[in-house]
Amino acid sequence: MMTDKQYMELALQLANSARGNTNPNPLVGAVIVKDGVIVGTGMHRKAGEPHAEVHAFNMAGEQAKGATLYVTLEPCSHFGKTPPCALRVKESGVARVVVAMQDPNPDVAGRGIRLLREAGIDVEVGLCENEALRLNERFIHNMLTARPFIRTKYAMTLDGRIATHTGDSKWITGEAARLDVHRIRHEVDGILVGIGTVLADNPSLTTRLPEGYGKNPTRIVLDTQLRTPLDAHVVNDEAPTIIVVGEAVTATQQAPFIEKGVTFITRRKTLHETLEALYEAGITDILVEGGGAVHSAFVREQLSNQCLIYIAPKIIGGAHAISPVTGEDVAYMRDTFDLVFDTVTRIGDDLKIVAYPKQKEVQ
Amino acid sequence: MMTDKQYMELALQLANSARGNTNPNPLVGAVIVKDGVIVGTGMHRKAGEPHAEVHAFNMAGEQAKGATLYVTLEPCSHFGKTPPCALRVKESGVARVVVAMQDPNPDVAGRGIRLLREAGIDVEVGLCENEALRLNERFIHNMLTARPFIRTKYAMTLDGRIATHTGDSKWITGEAARLDVHRIRHEVDGILVGIGTVLADNPSLTTRLPEGYGKNPTRIVLDTQLRTPLDAHVVNDEAPTIIVVGEAVTATQQAPFIEKGVTFITRRKTLHETLEALYEAGITDILVEGGGAVHSAFVREQLSNQCLIYIAPKIIGGAHAISPVTGEDVAYMRDTFDLVFDTVTRIGDDLKIVAYPKQKEVQ
Repeated sequence: MMTDKQYMELALQLANSARGNTNPNPLVGAVIVKDGVIVGTGMHRKAGEPHAEVHAFNMAGEQAKGATLYVTLEPCSHFGKTPPCALRVKESGVARVVVAMQDPNPDVAGRGIRLLREAGIDVEVGLCENEALRLNERFIHNMLTARPFIRTKYAMTLDGRIATHTGDSKWITGEAARLDVHRIRHEVDGILVGIGTVLADNPSLTTRLPEGYGKNPTRIVLDTQLRTPLDAHVVNDEAPTIIVVGEAVTATQQAPFIEKGVTFITRRKTLHETLEALYEAGITDILVEGGGAVHSAFVREQLSNQCLIYIAPKIIGGAHAISPVTGEDVAYMRDTFDLVFDTVTRIGDDLKIVAYPKQKEVQ
Repeated sequence: MMTDKQYMELALQLANSARGNTNPNPLVGAVIVKDGVIVGTGMHRKAGEPHAEVHAFNMAGEQAKGATLYVTLEPCSHFGKTPPCALRVKESGVARVVVAMQDPNPDVAGRGIRLLREAGIDVEVGLCENEALRLNERFIHNMLTARPFIRTKYAMTLDGRIATHTGDSKWITGEAARLDVHRIRHEVDGILVGIGTVLADNPSLTTRLPEGYGKNPTRIVLDTQLRTPLDAHVVNDEAPTIIVVGEAVTATQQAPFIEKGVTFITRRKTLHETLEALYEAGITDILVEGGGAVHSAFVREQLSNQCLIYIAPKIIGGAHAISPVTGEDVAYMRDTFDLVFDTVTRIGDDLKIVAYPKQKEVQ
């Protein structure tokens, strides 16, 4: 027989299996157990489709009566695209509900749980809460800030360089690390670069996976003066593109890009506000792929929610090789952007480091 | 009952327990086993003192007869400061000898083993050979090249900086990582910096351990024009100091330093040759602590035998913050100095990475 914790871990795994497909919704998994036997499982697969609990109840049928439901997120209590899950849970006849975490939206948190308790169901909250918080870090951040979750990504050598002084960066890391980046591109809504990167590297910023079914993120270019060439790869028809321009850029300048399917967003006063505009446009998370000035802007304004750093066992050296984070200088060590290492893993011959802002591990 | 491999691992541990004390000699450990019982153990503690086998035989006494000797390095076959161990092994009456690796000196490798085999002793070679090669990487390098083993060390942020543009580097890493560096200083014969580091940071380069008994390495300053101030910490009386100067530096310039106990070595034509001079002066291994130009010189001339990189979870950023390896630029990725990650460990809040030159993991 499995323990409560093991059932919840299974529910978390089910939830995670839909990663990349549920935006803007959270990842949710559910397991129903009756007399030590799993009678129902489910996960939320895609926005607009049934919630995790519904799939699990459909599978369990009459066996849900008197059973225990393990669910990674508080059952919803409002009518949205689908009826409230808390109602369905109540009607199912389950005797006990174990919830990993409350709804992150402070306006509704606890309502679903209260509804169930009022119906006489035994409800426990907080099992595997840290794992649940990490699982839905993107969604939680969205709910709390109305901005996309920002993942800062770069690949550097062991001496902290992303390219030689001539701009050569093929390749810093090996195949396994590069493939890993494509898997992450598949997960995110947006991928963002500065105009400098477009002009220097002409990247296509699409998801290229050997399986061939990678989902392309929306390409976002910070390009105040609209210097993106009309024939840049980033404006081809392989994926949607948003160019963030300054107010001075005219409709006439934009027209040929719009014809190619590009969407324009006018830069707001601060990067914070520009990110709010991108969130309003449906972008819930963004992989920021540089260059150095862009990374600097996100770091300096405390907008980076996660850093994803690949390190290759190579030394470039030299006085002019390129650093990953440039921009404005700070004079003292007390002004650094401080992080906490989360995971450090070998990937091919390289290292993959995931770090979170210090004291903001999940927000 | 333990296996051959376990006995050899114990011998390797015994050998390693003397790390830092045996230079210029190798680390060697020995275990004698009779009928499944360990009857003798020993390690080489210090140059001039008995070899590992001798301690083990003294402990085993008559019980060595018919026993098995596990030893991490081929018993020596020549009269040096002590009589040849192979002779002692032969006289001990052991029936079997398991040796992890041959003597690294190609001129004598295999002689001790041959001597034992000719005496009718069953000799096996190569058990835990990789561990033994790593254990004595310094000694092996010395034997093969007549140069010190070079450990390149720096501590950088997650964006590859060792200081802000103002030179502030207090502190990049936390206490645990800094303590680790002092433990390594205790192990090495020499610690080397460029004159730039002396002028910028005025370091004392001594070993400061909480236990208080750290051994200070000889401080080596690359200072072609003798710009080291006479009152620099690096020339205080806490540890020996060698300054490597250019030919143009006069005896008159050197005199006040010599009065303070400083030794001078004149720079040779190449860094290779200068290292040979340091080896002749008794320096078998060197921790190179920078700065960037010095690291670059060692890397470009393929003289770095190990890289020891500490990475702190911080981002400095900026256009002018300082990189760990500077010097001459390379234009293309094909010209990088390539390494292989060996160990990657958490140390306090930081990471410690040990990497070896690619295809030269042990030399």
